[in-house]
Amino acid sequence: MDRPPPDAEFDVIARITSRVSAGLLPLGPGDDAAILASGAVWTTDMLVQDTHFDGRLSPADIAYKAVAANVSDLAAMGAAPQAMLLSLGLPDADGAWVDSFADGLAEACHRWRVALVGGDTVRAAVVIVNIAMGGHCVARPMTRKGAREGDALWVTGTLGVAGRAWQEPHPPEASLAAWRRPDPPLDAALALARWGRVTAAMDLSDGLATDLRRLTVASGVGASVDVDAIPGGSGDVVWTGGEDYELLFTTGPSDDPRPHVEATGRRATRIGTMTGAVGDSGWPTPAWTHFAGAA
Amino acid sequence: MDRPPPDAEFDVIARITSRVSAGLLPLGPGDDAAILASGAVWTTDMLVQDTHFDGRLSPADIAYKAVAANVSDLAAMGAAPQAMLLSLGLPDADGAWVDSFADGLAEACHRWRVALVGGDTVRAAVVIVNIAMGGHCVARPMTRKGAREGDALWVTGTLGVAGRAWQEPHPPEASLAAWRRPDPPLDAALALARWGRVTAAMDLSDGLATDLRRLTVASGVGASVDVDAIPGGSGDVVWTGGEDYELLFTTGPSDDPRPHVEATGRRATRIGTMTGAVGDSGWPTPAWTHFAGAA
Repeated sequence: MDRPPPDAEFDVIARITSRVSAGLLPLGPGDDAAILASGAVWTTDMLVQDTHFDGRLSPADIAYKAVAANVSDLAAMGAAPQAMLLSLGLPDADGAWVDSFADGLAEACHRWRVALVGGDTVRAAVVIVNIAMGGHCVARPMTRKGAREGDALWVTGTLGVAGRAWQEPHPPEASLAAWRRPDPPLDAALALARWGRVTAAMDLSDGLATDLRRLTVASGVGASVDVDAIPGGSGDVVWTGGEDYELLFTTGPSDDPRPHVEATGRRATRIGTMTGAVGDSGWPTPAWTHFAGAA
Repeated sequence: MDRPPPDAEFDVIARITSRVSAGLLPLGPGDDAAILASGAVWTTDMLVQDTHFDGRLSPADIAYKAVAANVSDLAAMGAAPQAMLLSLGLPDADGAWVDSFADGLAEACHRWRVALVGGDTVRAAVVIVNIAMGGHCVARPMTRKGAREGDALWVTGTLGVAGRAWQEPHPPEASLAAWRRPDPPLDAALALARWGRVTAAMDLSDGLATDLRRLTVASGVGASVDVDAIPGGSGDVVWTGGEDYELLFTTGPSDDPRPHVEATGRRATRIGTMTGAVGDSGWPTPAWTHFAGAA
């Protein structure tokens, strides 16, 4: 499999948004989801065979993952999912494949209380799954932009579990399970949004190294990470594994989000402190990540 | 190129929707777009290289077509576009390709006054463009379901022009131009929605034979078509060409929509009358179209 390098993704987005004026949006591209003038929040996520999944995922897993990735984006902004549109590209009309896919889709829709309201199906050389999902914020939206010097840096859950599924040749079954069925902390994220003391938040989809840098760049601060505190250990996979679908967030220095997160059955762990200057943070940067023009 | 057979598309949708309960939606899958409880209207459309386009389309054309296809879906329901999400799959990060694509996107966004508010970019073996677009109805939504026996059947514009671009080995330049840059009758559709006398409407994306059958099935009526009246002639391409992106609609027997359509610079032509029974209509059905369970 061939995951897209984050720098290339950034470049494509920058090239497009620099040419397309986006007059309507209060928030716009660059956060996990877009907030429309109506107050609705929308996000979209595309999974492509051989890039995002291979034969180790069943059709039901693929559908479940696609829904979960969008739920994760909405959760990171403090938005509850409501409706989604599915575009499905298939090499052929294989009834058993479609039935399995639909079962995974139904399971995920039930899990996160989101309705499939429309879609498109096309023929394609590989399996393509695109979901666009809309929801509504339960409180003031959380974004990547509000972290301040001195704020505490937190993550939910355990990092690096799903990442081992595609980084290691013989990953443990627990890693495969986490990779097949992501469990974004929707309830914890909504609880944090209602609490109102989160200063910045985003979901961890591309790995801590990449996503933390995005948060610091968006907020205009740096971050000092206590490597020994990271839930999941200090191995490279917690930094670069990706697909954690956990929440990375900041609070005021003395705020304690743990009761709100733990009430939903998830753990929150403080892993560092935000610092004054972007780029002084000293956490590892994988060789394949270079943010042209961002640092 | 290999356009997906409509019957296979129907089967996939039926298999999925039969397994996924969709509790929230007042309208739901099956019309051109979905109307959410909030009153927002959303649609999505996926274009895949080698299925929907080939080297005769520039990156700018591909972007423009993708926006147009979604605008056409919203227009058919009487909805004005507002915002869209773009998912883009690319084999590599080719700056010139992306710049051309962005220019076509910007042109289309300006043409139909719609803002790009978010998206996703991924690596894929072929170019994949998915747009999800939201808007709002300017009046009571138009749907496929309201046509009654005796109603007049109308189309906007001229049929079969774009279809010749991919059905013929050496199509005229006007066909290539229409195929590259679809011009859905948004203003005419909104004028018809405000007029309030349209009983059923849908956009013509898969060809008159396929789409008219969908409208009759949705409304539970038949249709008798005056073949000589079809704007574009009586050749097979007006029935099966597809990609017309014109509006197919019905009105009461003595209503005249032409002033409303013509005020927007588009033509409306009466091509037939709705009849009492589904399936008695006698218009040609291409061999590749068989609607399992629908007729």
